[in-house]
Amino acid sequence: MSLLVTGSIGIDTVKTPYGVSENCLGGAAIYFSMAASFFSPVRFVGVIGSDCPFDLAKVFAGRDVDLTGLEVRDQSKTFRWTGSYHDNMDDRTTDCLELNVLAEAPPRVPEAFRDSEFVFLANTAPALQHQLLGQIDKPAFVAADTMNCWIQDHLDDLTALLKKIDCLIINEDEARMLANERNLIRSAQKILGMGPNVLIIKKGESGSIMCSADGDTFILPAYPAADVKDPTGAGDSFAGGFMGYLAQSGKTDFETLKTAVVYGTVVASFTIADFSLNGLTATDRTNIDERLQMLRNVTRF
Amino acid sequence: MSLLVTGSIGIDTVKTPYGVSENCLGGAAIYFSMAASFFSPVRFVGVIGSDCPFDLAKVFAGRDVDLTGLEVRDQSKTFRWTGSYHDNMDDRTTDCLELNVLAEAPPRVPEAFRDSEFVFLANTAPALQHQLLGQIDKPAFVAADTMNCWIQDHLDDLTALLKKIDCLIINEDEARMLANERNLIRSAQKILGMGPNVLIIKKGESGSIMCSADGDTFILPAYPAADVKDPTGAGDSFAGGFMGYLAQSGKTDFETLKTAVVYGTVVASFTIADFSLNGLTATDRTNIDERLQMLRNVTRF
Repeated sequence: MSLLVTGSIGIDTVKTPYGVSENCLGGAAIYFSMAASFFSPVRFVGVIGSDCPFDLAKVFAGRDVDLTGLEVRDQSKTFRWTGSYHDNMDDRTTDCLELNVLAEAPPRVPEAFRDSEFVFLANTAPALQHQLLGQIDKPAFVAADTMNCWIQDHLDDLTALLKKIDCLIINEDEARMLANERNLIRSAQKILGMGPNVLIIKKGESGSIMCSADGDTFILPAYPAADVKDPTGAGDSFAGGFMGYLAQSGKTDFETLKTAVVYGTVVASFTIADFSLNGLTATDRTNIDERLQMLRNVTRF
Repeated sequence: MSLLVTGSIGIDTVKTPYGVSENCLGGAAIYFSMAASFFSPVRFVGVIGSDCPFDLAKVFAGRDVDLTGLEVRDQSKTFRWTGSYHDNMDDRTTDCLELNVLAEAPPRVPEAFRDSEFVFLANTAPALQHQLLGQIDKPAFVAADTMNCWIQDHLDDLTALLKKIDCLIINEDEARMLANERNLIRSAQKILGMGPNVLIIKKGESGSIMCSADGDTFILPAYPAADVKDPTGAGDSFAGGFMGYLAQSGKTDFETLKTAVVYGTVVASFTIADFSLNGLTATDRTNIDERLQMLRNVTRF
């Protein structure tokens, strides 16, 4: 079934204890699309300025990523992010953020994309996520990401959005902040009460928890990665693998959602092995399926 | 098979965001023995001063805990610990520590306990762990705990101990410190190179990882506890459930070790539900087995 993503395209500079990657391609929609393309065709909606040095058609060559929704604004500049990871590789500091084109009106969803069935709204202002979602006719399953600044300063918009989506994918600090509750399991219960049927809480190196409004729970450790060079894009790759697998299978029952979480986890483990998209572009579906089997082996009892 | 524990008996004062428990019974050997007693008889070795207000025979009444190795020193005072947990319930601050009798010579292992097959050396100075281990004839499986201060200041003693034990059980910060390596999987590989055949790294709310020198890995999330009042004793309860199950089964192959980790995890989930030993004393083996099944259900895919 069709899968649409809306989200950022960025020029990233990333510092980790393992090195520096300057002015490399990043952004939520980029990581998501690359990850999802192992499973399903992707409809891409995003916006860049005329300064963007990357040819996305080349980046996604050989992958079924439809760039009809890529908007290039001549008078605008591309989003830029510079960040540094701490020693634990889970925490990071944003050193510099230039929203540029992301501070303007959101891109338009092309007419041909309006019938999309699976939709991922990557992190941006909840009001923009609303606007983007309003351009899709009748999606079957909508997932969204958000972050601390929207929880703190745009809670009304976010609360309204939560009533319109099926699945929220956030990290553990965001979950605690949104629920105003220190216990993660209680936080999950409170957030499910705000609207979504499914909540996925990402815990970085410690895996993820998925809970449903029907009372189902799934807890998965992260893949035991000995080589982590750059965690940038891990969350969006997780979402890409997750949504890509759902779109491929065309189902959203809890067993399918569980398998989707496992694929998301595995795909993210390739992302973090190298800077930018290098970890993802170096792998294929066979490697992904092998690693899924390995994750099953080390978690089963 | 026989199971012996050596470790502290403490008078604890614990502050958590959920309340305060003053002058309650604590200590590694206490939590360990209570947890292990669901699976196996326990031989208890520990020392208190004449001021200890707790009657351990009453505490363990109805459980197969042999207190022959409990030494009461008339001229000494019992170990005391006062600690405060932070909001995340994983980090804590030691507000006051009075080693008292723990700063003296270690207790003697009774003659009748010298043939013990399974041995747990709870956290104390590695030199004392050596001395205690030296009093056991020919143990089949020895596990030990340690902590940051011994890694920092008594590394030679600890390194020597690691060559004499089968299994080290430590938390993730200690693992990184001991291995001098930020990646946890690499840390595990380095520590296994120091001697033990089995390493278990505890990650609090995020579960645990077990690795063997043979290259086996097992990753288990924590039980999804919505009610956490006091994490004190969780690690020692984990070790108690783990070693208790091993002693019960009499085996140490990796599949048995995996099941033991699951039991340790489940038993610890009862400990943290209430202050002091209240969570443990309120449960039984049937509840433990039910929770094990639930943990299997929420992790299997």
